[in-house]
Amino acid sequence: MLFFHDDRHRLHFPQAELDGGQFVTPYERPSRVEYVLRRLQETGMRAAAPGALDMGPVRAVHAPDYLEFLATCWADWVASGARGEIIATSFPVRRMRQKPPRNIDGKVGYYSLAAETAITAGTWEAAQASCALAQSAQRAVAAGERAAFALCRPPGHHAASDLFGGYCFLNNAAVAAQMFRDDGAGRVAVLDIDFHHGNGTQDIFHRRGDVFFASIHGAPEDAFPYFLGYADETGEGAGEGANLNLPLPPGTPFGPWAEALDAALAAIRDFGAEALVVSLGTDAFKDDPISFFKLESADFAEAGRRIAGAGLPTVFVMEGGYAIEAVGINAVNVLQGFEEAAA
Amino acid sequence: MLFFHDDRHRLHFPQAELDGGQFVTPYERPSRVEYVLRRLQETGMRAAAPGALDMGPVRAVHAPDYLEFLATCWADWVASGARGEIIATSFPVRRMRQKPPRNIDGKVGYYSLAAETAITAGTWEAAQASCALAQSAQRAVAAGERAAFALCRPPGHHAASDLFGGYCFLNNAAVAAQMFRDDGAGRVAVLDIDFHHGNGTQDIFHRRGDVFFASIHGAPEDAFPYFLGYADETGEGAGEGANLNLPLPPGTPFGPWAEALDAALAAIRDFGAEALVVSLGTDAFKDDPISFFKLESADFAEAGRRIAGAGLPTVFVMEGGYAIEAVGINAVNVLQGFEEAAA
Repeated sequence: MLFFHDDRHRLHFPQAELDGGQFVTPYERPSRVEYVLRRLQETGMRAAAPGALDMGPVRAVHAPDYLEFLATCWADWVASGARGEIIATSFPVRRMRQKPPRNIDGKVGYYSLAAETAITAGTWEAAQASCALAQSAQRAVAAGERAAFALCRPPGHHAASDLFGGYCFLNNAAVAAQMFRDDGAGRVAVLDIDFHHGNGTQDIFHRRGDVFFASIHGAPEDAFPYFLGYADETGEGAGEGANLNLPLPPGTPFGPWAEALDAALAAIRDFGAEALVVSLGTDAFKDDPISFFKLESADFAEAGRRIAGAGLPTVFVMEGGYAIEAVGINAVNVLQGFEEAAA
Repeated sequence: MLFFHDDRHRLHFPQAELDGGQFVTPYERPSRVEYVLRRLQETGMRAAAPGALDMGPVRAVHAPDYLEFLATCWADWVASGARGEIIATSFPVRRMRQKPPRNIDGKVGYYSLAAETAITAGTWEAAQASCALAQSAQRAVAAGERAAFALCRPPGHHAASDLFGGYCFLNNAAVAAQMFRDDGAGRVAVLDIDFHHGNGTQDIFHRRGDVFFASIHGAPEDAFPYFLGYADETGEGAGEGANLNLPLPPGTPFGPWAEALDAALAAIRDFGAEALVVSLGTDAFKDDPISFFKLESADFAEAGRRIAGAGLPTVFVMEGGYAIEAVGINAVNVLQGFEEAAA
């Protein structure tokens, strides 16, 4: 399988993540990519050079003021005299005004859904480079490849049209899905197998009937992002029926997880999707430090085989996975399983 | 003037506040109280022993599930294995579900509006002791004192019915106002002269016509809490017209600040308030490290004189003020100015 990679992901490496009331080294760190890259090379996957970022499809899924914020926040933050990296502290929660303030500290809170995710001097460049990988993979598939893999970092599925958080800034999967639509696919599906609910992707397409979103994830009562991902979120307006959440409880092993995967794939078939974007997180793995499913490494290959069974042109976009040394094996197992079944 | 104090405020002293992307010693720290206490003693104010907390009026302004959360969150946090103090990381911002999760980390985010405020093992006891001071001051005034001062810490005016943040957990001013209503006052006013908008107090009374809320504060475009405090927030439903925000820009000196104070006092008179609760922050002071008004210490005495001019039974409740050595002088200047004019 073709894959796309860009070293500029290293420009995003915050000093700290707020976790359990303390600063810890971020779970979402550059070495994750190195393990995946090594495994891709070991298994003979074909590296391809990524193209430049096209802001058109990015603007189609993100709000203009949010993109302006991402591009300018670091300079504003430094100019304000703040000495640390950017971390949001004040949030416009229920019954508060949804209006971006002028003050940069307030603005950071306005555009954030979580305080665990820091923005550094290099975050915007890394996020753009990451998104360009998803675009490159989509272009390869649009040009005839059966599938391609974008080794995105930072990940994207928690980023909503105007919110960053959960380690995400630009929604790479949503951008790839949008590009399939722009290329003429009538209906597109995003399948999110990351352990955490893809709240950003769901939110971006929630009122659209042209992109189906299906997610298998830790139940929101028990797992980040906590405030989206319930089964009763089925889409709204034109998007009613085009959202399928399959939340699962702590300790879920491959059996029930795979049943949920089959249900998601069946729904994608019924929807009539002509192209598929997979948000490929590997944190459903049993040893993931911040997740609670119990998949074995071999299960990821079986997941890849089942995804291939959908018979759709498929873009894989890297999302989470924090059992660092296993991230490469698990991610590439999905791709290998897919290739076996698609062959 | 009678004042009420409780050493148990010291039980709340988080190790750190998230500020500018770093952990710093909290601006809202125990020594603030020591400076005010010393100044109260120097000026011959009369200490009185506080009574026990009455949860009745607390329950009238806070949601039952929020109070349950405050009472149990520390034990749940420790049981979860978290090693630091409680700091919220994940927030139910726009377009997310307003539903408290089961997971304690998620629950903390559900009940919070800001990540700068930590909860420690002693926070709940300190917050209750602080609130009992406001209740004691209200009881003294209800029993015939012209005025009384509650040296509350932690402060309260950012705490909404179901949200903590901005160093606040229980809304002491709202509880005192509620007690005046319960005692039979037909109409009560809360005047908030803390530099920061009293978003919690506003929110608690926003749909009630029996409690008028007036606030003079740093414009929300430029100052915490950023997402409430605009002039067009005038109350809703039965509360329409019973909310007066007077936001002022960076650099505001006493002249325009005092005009806003007079406007607030005139509105309180027109409202027909029979009792007054003053949210007494001193962070309008020119040297406050996290604020941007330019009041001199002497101006606080003049503010006290003007407040006395309202001729109402008055409970003063301590809120913010972070120019630590000046907090005592400035707070007691308000009380002394009030006493002079009321004599």
